[in-house]
This record gives sequence, structure tokens and C-alpha cells, in this order.
Amino acid sequence: MTLTAEDMGAYFRAGGKAVNGWCSIPSGVTAELMAQTGFDMLTIDMQHGLIDYQVAVQMLQAMSASPAPKIVRIPWNEPGIAMKMLDAGATGLICPMINTADEARALVEATRYAPLGARSYGPVRAARLHSGYVGRSNDLVQVFAMIETAEALENRAEIMAVQGLSGVYIGPSDLGLSMGYEPSLTPGEPAVLAAIADILDTARQAGLLAGIHCGSAARVRQVLEQGFDFGSLATDIGLFAQAMGQALQQARGPAVTESSSGNY
Amino acid sequence: MTLTAEDMGAYFRAGGKAVNGWCSIPSGVTAELMAQTGFDMLTIDMQHGLIDYQVAVQMLQAMSASPAPKIVRIPWNEPGIAMKMLDAGATGLICPMINTADEARALVEATRYAPLGARSYGPVRAARLHSGYVGRSNDLVQVFAMIETAEALENRAEIMAVQGLSGVYIGPSDLGLSMGYEPSLTPGEPAVLAAIADILDTARQAGLLAGIHCGSAARVRQVLEQGFDFGSLATDIGLFAQAMGQALQQARGPAVTESSSGNY
Amino acid sequence: MTLTAEDMGAYFRAGGKAVNGWCSIPSGVTAELMAQTGFDMLTIDMQHGLIDYQVAVQMLQAMSASPAPKIVRIPWNEPGIAMKMLDAGATGLICPMINTADEARALVEATRYAPLGARSYGPVRAARLHSGYVGRSNDLVQVFAMIETAEALENRAEIMAVQGLSGVYIGPSDLGLSMGYEPSLTPGEPAVLAAIADILDTARQAGLLAGIHCGSAARVRQVLEQGFDFGSLATDIGLFAQAMGQALQQARGPAVTESSSGNY
Amino acid sequence: MTLTAEDMGAYFRAGGKAVNGWCSIPSGVTAELMAQTGFDMLTIDMQHGLIDYQVAVQMLQAMSASPAPKIVRIPWNEPGIAMKMLDAGATGLICPMINTADEARALVEATRYAPLGARSYGPVRAARLHSGYVGRSNDLVQVFAMIETAEALENRAEIMAVQGLSGVYIGPSDLGLSMGYEPSLTPGEPAVLAAIADILDTARQAGLLAGIHCGSAARVRQVLEQGFDFGSLATDIGLFAQAMGQALQQARGPAVTESSSGNY
Amino acid sequence: MTLTAEDMGAYFRAGGKAVNGWCSIPSGVTAELMAQTGFDMLTIDMQHGLIDYQVAVQMLQAMSASPAPKIVRIPWNEPGIAMKMLDAGATGLICPMINTADEARALVEATRYAPLGARSYGPVRAARLHSGYVGRSNDLVQVFAMIETAEALENRAEIMAVQGLSGVYIGPSDLGLSMGYEPSLTPGEPAVLAAIADILDTARQAGLLAGIHCGSAARVRQVLEQGFDFGSLATDIGLFAQAMGQALQQARGPAVTESSSGNY
Amino acid sequence: MTLTAEDMGAYFRAGGKAVNGWCSIPSGVTAELMAQTGFDMLTIDMQHGLIDYQVAVQMLQAMSASPAPKIVRIPWNEPGIAMKMLDAGATGLICPMINTADEARALVEATRYAPLGARSYGPVRAARLHSGYVGRSNDLVQVFAMIETAEALENRAEIMAVQGLSGVYIGPSDLGLSMGYEPSLTPGEPAVLAAIADILDTARQAGLLAGIHCGSAARVRQVLEQGFDFGSLATDIGLFAQAMGQALQQARGPAVTESSSGNY
Ligand SMILES: [Mg+2]
Ligand SMILES: [Mg+2]
Ligand SMILES: [Mg+2]
Ligand SMILES: [Mg+2]
Ligand SMILES: [Mg+2]
Ligand SMILES: [Mg+2]
Repeated sequence: MTLTAEDMGAYFRAGGKAVNGWCSIPSGVTAELMAQTGFDMLTIDMQHGLIDYQVAVQMLQAMSASPAPKIVRIPWNEPGIAMKMLDAGATGLICPMINTADEARALVEATRYAPLGARSYGPVRAARLHSGYVGRSNDLVQVFAMIETAEALENRAEIMAVQGLSGVYIGPSDLGLSMGYEPSLTPGEPAVLAAIADILDTARQAGLLAGIHCGSAARVRQVLEQGFDFGSLATDIGLFAQAMGQALQQARGPAVTESSSGNY
Repeated sequence: MTLTAEDMGAYFRAGGKAVNGWCSIPSGVTAELMAQTGFDMLTIDMQHGLIDYQVAVQMLQAMSASPAPKIVRIPWNEPGIAMKMLDAGATGLICPMINTADEARALVEATRYAPLGARSYGPVRAARLHSGYVGRSNDLVQVFAMIETAEALENRAEIMAVQGLSGVYIGPSDLGLSMGYEPSLTPGEPAVLAAIADILDTARQAGLLAGIHCGSAARVRQVLEQGFDFGSLATDIGLFAQAMGQALQQARGPAVTESSSGNY
Repeated sequence: MTLTAEDMGAYFRAGGKAVNGWCSIPSGVTAELMAQTGFDMLTIDMQHGLIDYQVAVQMLQAMSASPAPKIVRIPWNEPGIAMKMLDAGATGLICPMINTADEARALVEATRYAPLGARSYGPVRAARLHSGYVGRSNDLVQVFAMIETAEALENRAEIMAVQGLSGVYIGPSDLGLSMGYEPSLTPGEPAVLAAIADILDTARQAGLLAGIHCGSAARVRQVLEQGFDFGSLATDIGLFAQAMGQALQQARGPAVTESSSGNY
Repeated sequence: MTLTAEDMGAYFRAGGKAVNGWCSIPSGVTAELMAQTGFDMLTIDMQHGLIDYQVAVQMLQAMSASPAPKIVRIPWNEPGIAMKMLDAGATGLICPMINTADEARALVEATRYAPLGARSYGPVRAARLHSGYVGRSNDLVQVFAMIETAEALENRAEIMAVQGLSGVYIGPSDLGLSMGYEPSLTPGEPAVLAAIADILDTARQAGLLAGIHCGSAARVRQVLEQGFDFGSLATDIGLFAQAMGQALQQARGPAVTESSSGNY
Repeated sequence: MTLTAEDMGAYFRAGGKAVNGWCSIPSGVTAELMAQTGFDMLTIDMQHGLIDYQVAVQMLQAMSASPAPKIVRIPWNEPGIAMKMLDAGATGLICPMINTADEARALVEATRYAPLGARSYGPVRAARLHSGYVGRSNDLVQVFAMIETAEALENRAEIMAVQGLSGVYIGPSDLGLSMGYEPSLTPGEPAVLAAIADILDTARQAGLLAGIHCGSAARVRQVLEQGFDFGSLATDIGLFAQAMGQALQQARGPAVTESSSGNY
Repeated sequence: MTLTAEDMGAYFRAGGKAVNGWCSIPSGVTAELMAQTGFDMLTIDMQHGLIDYQVAVQMLQAMSASPAPKIVRIPWNEPGIAMKMLDAGATGLICPMINTADEARALVEATRYAPLGARSYGPVRAARLHSGYVGRSNDLVQVFAMIETAEALENRAEIMAVQGLSGVYIGPSDLGLSMGYEPSLTPGEPAVLAAIADILDTARQAGLLAGIHCGSAARVRQVLEQGFDFGSLATDIGLFAQAMGQALQQARGPAVTESSSGNY
């Protein structure tokens, strides 16, 4: 079974797992290369990636030959950009720093049509890509709240009880930082690992999807085995810089192996 | 009498009517074509259009040979983008989803200089286009609140009592959707039509301008006859797609007529 | 049978006919709309369209979900841009103003790999779209010489004898102009119509494809019946301006019908 | 001692003074020219300048050969854009219209990592420019609150008591406007001049840096003598227009001198 | 009498003089500022300016509110770009390095419609700006050959005898360099000054317009008095850098005056 | 000794070797990452890379913090683009497909100031980066002719005898293709390897620099040992795609190693 934008919910409900390609470079060319690589799903990062709206639209278009779902991490829980990216054809949104149930409700409000929310009607590109868009929108569009602070950890059950969320997404670096540790995408601190397990557990009980940011391919394998629905291979910038550095070193002399593409 | 950016208020107070060209394509080339078409006024849609700030500035410049007022629909009631578009030379703003008098006051706050509001001073492009800009700004700049939900319908009198608004703008699709109907720009539901009439009526009593989103040329004619000051011919994307589809069908065989360019 | 980039030669050899969508607006958004319209093939016009290289690449990417062949009309018979567009994934080129066999040979030289020509190797995007690209390139890539002057008309047999051309493309406006008439895409002058018929006839004898620029849907139907393999519906700019003008007139009063979208 | 991004705090604590180049034109070319001019520090104005995110990143890159600190004035006190600009490598932020201590706390929250604030972790470009970025970030990044209304003037002590602010920045035009005067960058009103002196005084007592917007080179000299740490030479657009106007007048006849480059 | 795109030939034939604003910065914002400055005519420099096609189109649009003629200096005597800029609405072209009558004939061939030349038909933007474009094109479009080498100096009579040229344009830096001197826009070498006078003289005898590149406002006044039809104030980049440098010096201490904005 | 733009000739004359980073992605972000990687020199590929003029300027600016020489491979031996890239600050040019001494002379003509060549004067960005630019230009600017066909191989001595060339650059893929073999950047055919050795040998005798395109880090090491001055690690697109593919495979299961990043 292939993961597509049309059946993302069904795919994961059927137990499917996914490797999520993470796009931080503001370029249709690298976006298309990411899509050609064959990732199961693709995310354009408008928060920490160097990407703004107009380039994000170009990137969505450049990836349009691929059936993989195109997700967008928006910069912040702001309704203007959330709605613009859905109208532009993203079938999923990841929203950073959802720390309370109120913040989760605001996110749902911005991303779901009435009566569930108050998303404004005008799916200018989305409706051309997906027939019957409005009627199917609540099934089609996957909305993920990031659980990535100590406060969110404590509030996780209330957050996940908010109707209209599709799932949660964990940012281990921010989570660790807010708990007083060094930010890391390959966390080793027992408290952070326990927090991650707790969030996953709560998501399972709430019937929500769960994804997580990963700093290496090995970490992606690990989280999928742990039970996450998807792990993100972050980031294109990190992997690009790492590949270039290794190639340069090989051209000059013996190779050096680095194990991670960065911490964000 | 020709409608221009300099006399938009006076034009409508004198009973003038206007057809508003609606720009959703992020391109100076199509924007210039819209201006050359001869619309009485022009709106760049940053909410549901595929347009961000930098391209909107290009579009304003590309339309600068036309005397028609250039309006911007901002993505949301957020002060940063509202002020940026006014500084860039838009002489009108349409703000989506104003549901309460407080939201209307926040909109006025962001778009009117002290003492009426708290717009920050720095009309970098606007002041080069309009002499004596700051002193005249409250006359020159037209601020429209969108009345497009059941909540706004109920609060319409309080919203329209907020000092500093120039008028209201109706979004029939969102209005219908929030009332429990299918979104449509050629609404047929009696309740929606009654709501539209009520909003127009309240605007007349409040001495405010009233415009409305329309999905066809025929609908524009209809709303102007009904008493609206202007109707928007939405959208360039819809009309482009419709024209292309019809031409292709004609090239292949007998023509098929479609009556609307979309619902947003 | 659907026309695709992979089988363009076979499609026409099997007697298929095509309506060619003509893109002159420098925008991925309108390009994607053209592709969604369902034209059999699509051409990005870098000669008279307002389009340069970087936007043309964006447009190719924005149309990549469609199987239709993406053709590029290059600005002039200059090898740099010809090769760049092929590397970027165009599977066809239309080159303006080929007046002599020498000019045709230079075009083939720039667009065919050795030994047929001297195209430089580096199909950076093309090879990711089409497996086995280099070996199949001479079949895959369709090269059209424009026959559009009195000189070219006279030299048509010699031009079409140049090995490596896939077909010819007629520009009626330039052809008429060079013969001393008003430029027109719906030519009525008997001499121009005779010239067009002669070129088509010579192409048939030479075993080459033949396409032609058309200013209306009716004209496309006509040329396909006359025997051309494809007719281009020119242009998106013309059809956009015409649709906008008609809609504005309808919004203001009784509609006026125009029959053509322009002469180029 | 040269002012650099690495030692901005130390430079001013040692009594250094700075002339701040103010960039309002959305162009890497003019940004690079500004950097080559040799300003002690450089600010990209995303509030009243005609500049959005993607161009601001280009401008930061185009100025990267200069050691001068690159500051960004964000459009509004919105966390999304504040964090994006820091991640993109700005080592300072100026935030408009901080009128209360609560607003100042929100600014600190968005721009400082835990535990001081809640900035999200992901310094994608910043960390490549500054080694040990996260640990040093609170020293490295300078956060300025604009004190530019009568309300802020009254609340200045409470605002400046908020932990995590590096300094204040005065906007004389908005300050004057909110006090009921004409906006001016060379203020003459005694009340405005007194307000400016009071703000500077409070900053000195709070141990904070103080900068101010200036409309001419003479005004910059004046404020540095008054005790400000830096004065901004606003703006590139104003100086460009003034230089062009003077040159044109000189080409046509006797020169006319203007004394200011604008009021914003 | 005001110089406009519509009557450029007539204006100069009536003895009008013009100051030409020279745009080298790739930005619609600075282009619009140049147009607002009130130059009699405006030139976009695609040769030594940092400007390519797509930005040049934006600049033409951004200057469209001004009636002043918009000229383009193309990068080289290449037909593709020459025709593209005319189609995009430039009503004049300056072509560098025309050293022989053959090169002048090639230039005319690319820029004049049949029968005078072989410009390809498709004035996509030009025809919307100028009614009856094709019929009037040879009057409307001004074509200037640059005479700027020792070889061109020698061939000046033959070059100027080529039918279809509107005038010549002198590049003193290149002219001086090719004669063995330092490049300068305020030439002092008697041989260079004599060459300039000779070229002007030949143009007068040939009935052609004559313009010249100038490095300061004073030099523009001088060349207009010498008899040139127009002098270019080169360049926006030079004047920008000079204005910024002077303002910075004034902010730091006593002003220093520079007399020239550069040599190209 | 570090290779810099200022001393490229001296560096190689002193026996220095260099690894050349090859940029094919049209993005300032990836260009800056390439520069941060620490390559000894950097090349922007405008021939087979997906890069046009305006983006190439952005990339040059984004790499400006690095002292490494910035080279440009132009799309073809066309004077317009050659001069534009030098004016924009490239201190080296690689020109494809120089097959004869006449073509080499044309290249020198376009890239060297009089009396050696006829490059037009106007180093708008270059002169701000390099003091005394014009006088030093023939030393500073490195001009490389690509020897990459059987014809060029035969004419190599005559080509290299053209005064004004700095060196040659070998394209093994095109060379192999023109000799009747599969294009490859890790050539194994004895005839191709012999041709490469012959070209290197002739360059050594002519006192010219010699560089070569390489498809892997190992190949770069090999060619430097063979005596080449520099080897290019081609390409960023190839290495990006390879790194992404490997990471995805590792995330899914056991890793697969690929040995080359492509053939162009
Ligand atoms: Mg995070
Ligand atoms: Mg709405
Ligand atoms: Mg033609
Ligand atoms: Mg202010
Ligand atoms: Mg010159
Ligand atoms: Mg090659």
C-alpha cells in the first residue's frame, strides 16, 4: 500500500509506517529531488526552514508529480498562514508549540470548516487537486499539534482531547530544552525518552496519529519500531552539508563519518 | 465620473457604482492585464489568492498606470500585514472574518493613524503616490470589515458602529457555510439571501459602504441593482480556467457553457 | 490514446491530433492551470511570451503532474538556451525563424547528441524524468523548425531535408508580414493560405510533423481538419484579456463577443 | 575597536558608538552596497521597508562579507516572524510598538531560549555563522523594544524592567504622532525632545542600550553626542531619492539642497 | 513640451534636450523611484547593470505610471534579447559595441519589422501600451548603436548610413580604453574629446540622434550644451553608493565631497 | 597557503592543488552551504546547472563571506553572458565546447580588456570587490576553455596557443560521447583516458592550468595525483540526491552504497 495525499488517514489506521522527508531549503529544485527520492510523505518546514509562502507554493507545485502527501509545518499558530497553506494545497499541517488545550482549539478553529471550526472558504489550489474537497476536507486534511515543551507534556491529555486534531508531532530538541537539557534529535536523557514514550502512549489512547522529528536514519528506524506512525528525516540542509563535507574530505584524504545531520 | 484612488469615498457617496476586479494570481503580468481591462477598482487577494507580500508589491507597481483604486484583502486581522500593505500603497483594505465589535476595533486600530487608531508611521510608497498622505489618510484609505459568519450577522450593528470603518464586504460562501449551507457565490438559500439583505440594510443605516463577492458577471449586475456600491468579479483564476476550458472544448468540438467562475 | 512526453512521435505517426496550450504568462500558477485544463500538449513561449529561463523551469515543474508533453519555444536559434531548456526537461523545442538549411543544421547541432549533432551532455532534470534518456533522446525529443518567412517558404524543401528535424511549425503572422500583408493568426489572404498549404504538403512528403499557430479555437479545428498534426491555441494572455473584458462588459451591460485572442 | 556581530554587547558596554545603516529597499544588491559603505551596524526594515522574509534572507546573505551586526526590524510583535529572522542569522531584533511590560515579556518569550523565554530551537543559518550559538545566544542576540508612543513613555520603567531586553529603540515620528504632533525624524517640539531624553535617561538607569531613528546625518551626530549608543541613518530609499533628485536638478541647472531624507 | 514614449523622435527633432536616468539596480522599487524623480527618459541597463530579463520586465511595469520613454541597453547585439525587450514594451534600444556597418545592419534586422528588417511579430506587452503598434513601430521605436571603439570611430560614417538606425550613443569609457587610455566618463584626453566631437558631428550630418554616457550631473550639462540630444546620468548604483558614503561620513564627522558616481 | 580569488594564478603556479565545489542548484542557500563546506574554489554552473543570471548573482553574493575564488561556467561561448558574469564579480570563467583556435580567440576577445581583447568596460560589482580591478584584470580573471570533443582534442595545441587563455578544463562525458563512447565522469575507456592525458600534457607544455570534471571524490583525488591543478566534485544535485536516497534506504533498512553522484 502506497501512502498518498488522498488516503493518509486510512494508511495509518491500517498500520502503515512512513518516512517523512523534511524540506528546509527554499527551492523548487531541491523539493522536486526530495519528491523523486521516494519518501513516503514530504514536509515543507516554514518554521525553522528558510522558506516563506511564495516559495512554499512553488515547492508544492514542484512536488506535484509525486502522490506522497505534502505537509507544511507553519511558522506559528497564526490563522492567516495556516489557512493560506491549506488553500495552496497542503493536505496536512504541523503546528509548533501547542502547549494548552486552548491553543489546540485555536488550531482546529483555523484549519477545519464549520461547524467543526471556522476555516474560511476559498480552497483555490486545493480544490483543483482534490475533487469534492470541502465535503471531504475533515478527512483529507491532517492536523498535527506539536507537543514539545514541559507544559505541553503535562497538558497532553487535555490537548489530545480537543476534537479535530489528527495527531501529534514531537520535537525532541525543544522538548529537551524546555526540560532543562541540551537540545538533541537523538535524545539520550532518560527523562526526555520517558516523556516521548508518555506522549506516544497518550496519543495511542486518544486514537491520534503520532510522528516525531529525527536527526538520523537510524533514529527514524528506531522510532518506527517504537510505535510511531512516522519519523521525519531532518533535514535536507543537514544532510546536504554533511554529504558535501564528507565528499570534500574524501577528495582530500581519508573519510570521516558523522552520525547526525543536525539537531533541528 | 471615474473612480480613482484619490476620491473613492466621494465617488460612492455620489451614488457611483463599481465593478471590482479580483486578482488571485501571483503575477505582475496578469495584474497589469486586469488594470488594462478597465475595472473600476482592483483588489489583490492575499487571503485566498496565491499571493504573498513581495509579489503583492510587484502587482501594485504593475497596476500603477491605472487610476483605479488598488485594494488589498489581507490574509487575516493581523496588524503587521495590514500596515505593510497600506505603507506599500494600497488605498483600501478588506479584512476577513470580523465577527465582533472588538475585532472591528482592532482593525481600525491597525489601519488609522492617531488619534483614531494606532497605525505606525512610515508610508514609504504610499506617501510618494499621494501628496499630503498622512493628513488625508483617514479620508483616502477605505477600510472594509468582512461580515461573513452567522456571528457577525448577529453582531452587525455593533460592528458597524465602530468608528473608523469605511464599509463592509460580504463573503457569501463563508456566510452560507457558517449558517449550515453549501458555500456559494450565487446563493439561492432564502436565509442567506435574507442575511445579505439585512447586512446591506444595516450598512445603509450606518452610513457605510457595502460591497459583496460575486461568482459571475450576472451576479455583479444583480447586486449593483440591489443597492450594493460594488460587486467583485471573482476570480481571475476562475475566469482564466473557465476561458481555457471553453476554448479547449471549442477546439475539440461543440462548446459547453459554464455559468460561474467558482465559489471563492 | 493519450499524448504523453514519452510517446509523442508514435502518437502522431499513428494519426493522433493535438490541441496545444500556449503559455505566455511568466507564472507557475497559470502554467499549472493550463496543465489542469487538459490540453494534449503544452508550450512555454520564451520568444514572444514574457518568460525567461528561471521562470520557465518553475513552469515545467508546476506542470509536472500532467503527462502531456512540455514543449518550449526558444527565443532564437541560439545554442545556449536551446540546450538549457532540454536539460531542464522540455521534450520538445520550437525554434523561430529557420530560413535556410544551414540554420536548420545549426538547430539540429544544438539539440541532438553526437553523432547526429553536438548537444553537450548534462541532462540534469531531463534524465530524472525519463529513464535511459541519452540513448532514447533522439526519439524522445521533438525538434521543430519554424517556417515563417518568404525566404523559408522558398527554402522549405532544403530545410526539411536536414536530418534530425522532427517537424515544422508555421507562424502565420510572421509569414504574412514577410510576404507583405498584415500579420494575422486567422489569415485570409489567398497567398498566405497557399503558402501554408505548400508547407504542410512539403512536410508530408518529407515525413515530418507539422503544427501551426492559431488565434482561435475555431481556427484550431480548421487546421486539424486540413491535416496538421497539432494547432496551438494562442495565447493564454490573449484569452485571459478577452475573458476579463467580456466579463467586465457583462457585469456592466449586454455582452460583446470577440472572436480571436490576438495575433501572436 | 570594530563593532561586529560577535561582540555587540561588549562594544557598547565599552562606550562604543555606532552609525546604523537602514535598509528599506528589497534587494540584495543595495544591501551589499550598504554593507560595503562601512556602516558600523546594519538594519533590514521589515516593518516600513518594502521587504518580506525571502528577500530579507537574501539581503542577510548579500551582506555576509561584512563583520557588522545585521539587525532586523520585524513588522510587528508576532512570534512567527521574530523567530524566523533569528534562525536566519540576524543577531539583533528591533520590535515596533512595545507599549506595556506584557508586550515586552511576549517579545522576550519569542526571542530567548528557555529558561529565559520560549524561543523554539532550530537556528538553521545562525548556528552555522556563530559557533556555540545556543549557549551564547542570550549574549549574542540583542533584543530592542521600540518605545514610540505616549503609552510606552509612561510605562517605560516597567517595560525596561523586563528581564531579557537588551535595549530600547526610539521612533520619534510615531512618538510625536501619538503625542499629538506632526511626525518628524528631526523633532523640534519640546515635549517630544523631553520624552526622548526621559527614555534615554531611563535606559541608562536600567543598564540598557539605547538607539534612535534619525532623518539626517547631522541628527545622527547629535544623538550620539546626547548619549545614545547608536543612531540610524534612515533610510536608503530616502537617501536614494534625494540623491537622484539633486543630481537631476544639477544636470538641469543650479542645485537645490534638501536637508532630510524623510520622516520614517 | 514633455518627452514621452509616444513622441520621442518628434521631441528631439524639435530641438528638445533630455536627461536620461540610468538604472543598474535589479529592483522594481528603485526603478519606480527613478521614474518618480522626473528624469526625461529612463534606461534599464542589461549590459553592465545587474539586471536580467525577468527583472527588467518588472522594472518596466514599475515605471509604467511615468510617461517618460523607457529604453533598454541590451547586453550584446544578439537578436533574441533585442526582440524580447521590444515585445516587453521598451520603446528604445541601445546596443553596445557596433563596430561595423554589418553589425549595424544586424541590429536593424532584429529591431525593425519587414520590409525594413526581420523582427519577429509578437508585441505582447508593447501593443497593449501603444495603439496601432505595428504600423507605427518604425517611428515609435528608437534604435541606438553604440559607437565606442577606435574601429567604430573609423567606420562611423558607414555605420550611420545604415537605414533604420535612429541614433548613436557614445560610451566614453570603452572608447578611451580602445584608444589606449584609462576608461573615464569625464574624459580629459584631447584625442578622446576629439573623437566624441567627431562622432557627434557625423551624427548631425547623418540626421541621427546622439546621446552619451556621463559620470556626473555637471558632465550631463556640458554635453547638452555641446549639442548632444541627451546625456545619461550614470549610474543609480554609483549615486547610491556615493550618497551613502557621504551621509556616513557626515554622521561621523566633516563631509567629504566626491565629484563622480563612477566610470561606467 | 589558502586559495583566494586574489591569487588564483599564483597559487597554482606555486604547485597548489584544489578541490572545486560544483553548484547546479539555483539557490543562495545551497550556494552558501557549499562555501561554508570549505571547498578551495567554487563554480556556479550556468550550462547544465538549473541556473540563470539573476540567481547566479544571488549565489555569488551568498558566497561572498568565503575567500575562495568564485568561477562561473557560462552556458555557451556567447559574449553577452560572459561579460555580464565577469562584471558581476566572477573571477573566473569556464566556457564549454571550445573546438577551434578561432573559438578560443572569440572567448578571449569577450573576456579580456583592450588591447588583449575587447571586453566592454563596466565592472559594476567586480570593481567593488577587487581594488585596481581594471589594471589587474588580466591577472585576476582566469579564463578556461573546455576541451571536450574529438575536434578540440585534435586542435588542442592551436587552441592552447591562443594568448589570453589561463587554462583548459576537460569535460570527460562530452569528450567520451564525441569519441563514440558512453558519457562518463569516471571514464574507463583507454582512448578517453589517453585523450585526457594528452590534453593535460599539452597544457603543461603550453604553461596553462588544467582542471577536469569528476563524478566522485575518489576521482578527484586521482586526477590531482595525475597532475591536474584542480578537480571538480560534480555535482551538488548529484550528491544531494545520492545522500537523500541513501538516508531513505537506511531509514527503511540496510544501506546501499552508490559510488558516483552522476555523469554531468
Ligand atoms: Mg520545535
Ligand atoms: Mg470569506
Ligand atoms: Mg513568429
Ligand atoms: Mg515607528
Ligand atoms: Mg561600453
Ligand atoms: Mg560538457
